[in-house]
Amino acid sequence: MGGSVAIDHRDAGTLARVTLANPGKHNAIDIAMWRALRAIFERLQALPADEAPRVVVVSGAGGQFASGGDIVEFVDFRFDEARLHDFHENIVAPALGAMLACDIPLIAQIDGACIGGGLEIAACCDIRIAAEGSRFGAPIAKLGFPMAPGELKLLSGVAPAPMLREMLLEARLFDAARALQCGLVHAVVPAQDLAALVAERAAQIEMLSPQAARINKRTLRQIAAGGPSGPERRAHFAYADSAEHREGVQAFVQKRAPRFDRG
Amino acid sequence: MGGSVAIDHRDAGTLARVTLANPGKHNAIDIAMWRALRAIFERLQALPADEAPRVVVVSGAGGQFASGGDIVEFVDFRFDEARLHDFHENIVAPALGAMLACDIPLIAQIDGACIGGGLEIAACCDIRIAAEGSRFGAPIAKLGFPMAPGELKLLSGVAPAPMLREMLLEARLFDAARALQCGLVHAVVPAQDLAALVAERAAQIEMLSPQAARINKRTLRQIAAGGPSGPERRAHFAYADSAEHREGVQAFVQKRAPRFDRG
Amino acid sequence: MGGSVAIDHRDAGTLARVTLANPGKHNAIDIAMWRALRAIFERLQALPADEAPRVVVVSGAGGQFASGGDIVEFVDFRFDEARLHDFHENIVAPALGAMLACDIPLIAQIDGACIGGGLEIAACCDIRIAAEGSRFGAPIAKLGFPMAPGELKLLSGVAPAPMLREMLLEARLFDAARALQCGLVHAVVPAQDLAALVAERAAQIEMLSPQAARINKRTLRQIAAGGPSGPERRAHFAYADSAEHREGVQAFVQKRAPRFDRG
Repeated sequence: MGGSVAIDHRDAGTLARVTLANPGKHNAIDIAMWRALRAIFERLQALPADEAPRVVVVSGAGGQFASGGDIVEFVDFRFDEARLHDFHENIVAPALGAMLACDIPLIAQIDGACIGGGLEIAACCDIRIAAEGSRFGAPIAKLGFPMAPGELKLLSGVAPAPMLREMLLEARLFDAARALQCGLVHAVVPAQDLAALVAERAAQIEMLSPQAARINKRTLRQIAAGGPSGPERRAHFAYADSAEHREGVQAFVQKRAPRFDRG
Repeated sequence: MGGSVAIDHRDAGTLARVTLANPGKHNAIDIAMWRALRAIFERLQALPADEAPRVVVVSGAGGQFASGGDIVEFVDFRFDEARLHDFHENIVAPALGAMLACDIPLIAQIDGACIGGGLEIAACCDIRIAAEGSRFGAPIAKLGFPMAPGELKLLSGVAPAPMLREMLLEARLFDAARALQCGLVHAVVPAQDLAALVAERAAQIEMLSPQAARINKRTLRQIAAGGPSGPERRAHFAYADSAEHREGVQAFVQKRAPRFDRG
Repeated sequence: MGGSVAIDHRDAGTLARVTLANPGKHNAIDIAMWRALRAIFERLQALPADEAPRVVVVSGAGGQFASGGDIVEFVDFRFDEARLHDFHENIVAPALGAMLACDIPLIAQIDGACIGGGLEIAACCDIRIAAEGSRFGAPIAKLGFPMAPGELKLLSGVAPAPMLREMLLEARLFDAARALQCGLVHAVVPAQDLAALVAERAAQIEMLSPQAARINKRTLRQIAAGGPSGPERRAHFAYADSAEHREGVQAFVQKRAPRFDRG
């Protein structure tokens, strides 16, 4: 049994879908799923540009996004300090890190529970589109434990600091409207419109310059790390003579739509 | 005469109340009050776990939270650089620092004026619940002086940067609705419902794991300081074999409410 | 032809206006305008206190704020790495840097397009007041290129990180209501009320202490740079014995309006 993470990326297309599934557990993320997530995003990042998708939609199966860790597994390892450290730093952190290191724009399609590890996965996405009934949080203070530092730092990049205190110290869940108001999600729609809105936004990204996305995501990582440094600022402009740059500017001057086709 | 800061923490209970009072001055914070605030929070932080409250509610007497420094005192010392430095760095900063260093969740119950030093005290709390008529700001540009660097840095952790510029450069007060919209406060209710909502949220925190709160607050401090460092990340997991951790996880597995009772 | 940046600062008055104009191009910012912007703000910053304005309103001519770079110029230099680097680091960055280094409060009066370079100019202002029809963004992924690191860092100081990802990775424009919700602008009014509201807020700033504004802006820069350092914190209190400080505090004690007149 246990959960799974599946990727659907047919014919080297420009759209890929990653689906979290752990039936009967609101897609709780078990250890095998964290490992699969890491492998999938490391593989996506390693694809050559002409085979890589231009946008990845991350969603959960069965009307849920994902609801934290798989707590039944927790009893096996959480009470041993070395094994607990290993879980957070060598299993969870590399999975989230692989998502953050991915240069492709990621859209989280969020329905139902987006909680704990599920919220962390959504936080690694660039765009979060939520259904009206979705809910957000990490009520682990009920389980007697705090959030791991790397995971809390991740969340502090997508949610305002006061909201995070409320989420953790009150073990509070937020509904979609409050998540939108706090800036944690980018849009909220009725559940029946969620897939269509995500598809529309993904299609928009597919038409844009993958190079621009890749470099923008890199710069945002540099800023989050306290940079960019002087050498990073200088290296940034290496795209000057690229085909996508020429096509984009020339299309604008010629008053036509740009075509960022594969080579 | 002058103001006072009182603490009500009976029978080593799980709830404590700290009350700011300076009658006739909207609870302006005078030097004695800054010193009392520091002493109270240093004492709270030093309590052994089985005597410490699990939540502290900070409020003001007489329908106000607190309204800045006590300006009548200002004439005595503000125009001398050494004494002005001493006031901000050796009187105000240690009081705010003692609040920030306190591992217990703090709830600000805000009615009326939450201004200047009062706003800074509220900013040291984890949760800010406001009455509809409350107002927020630091209109000290009318008094010809800027905000001290440590105090401005504190506010920049709870309010968006653009809001702070408006607050300081226009000497603008914000009403509760705007404070909510900006994320500065967590909830706004009619004044007559304020105490009840704070009590309800305090009661929720009292039932959660104090250990989780303590470690989460520590991690949030580490993040605000640019960390956590590698050693801090490693030290984080020392809670693995703790009673609260075991109780929380086991209660979940057993589908019962956890009991984070004192030893 | 080409664009221009004009400053209107008559009789060493307390209000100055800076106007961006590039007719027929929605005030796109060309190289000459970036240079003019730098010169204007360096000159403003160098004025002695009794000649300097106390507030500067930045706006665009003809119902637009400004709409990005002048793309016709782009074809000349963007495809050469050294010239592209020179444009962003030695032409754009110093102009934005001169605005950020200016100690005088800056209000952006925003109508119509506030896009690309225009958005960056608005981001250097302290206060952004927008008309209902205005729109915000930097849809350069359509042009095949990313945002320069210094410019993206600038925007990350005034807009939430998730909003910036949406803006860049989807090449999305935001309307004024969304910009307000995200905290990017401070107020939104019908276009016909824009000038009046800006004038009212400028007049409020003109009455406040320029010294307080100057030091507050300096401290906010120090915080944005990861400080303030210990020496910066100590140097902060040099205003203790100043005329504006004495006047502000004494006026309050005497229950009268302060007068921060020039010497």
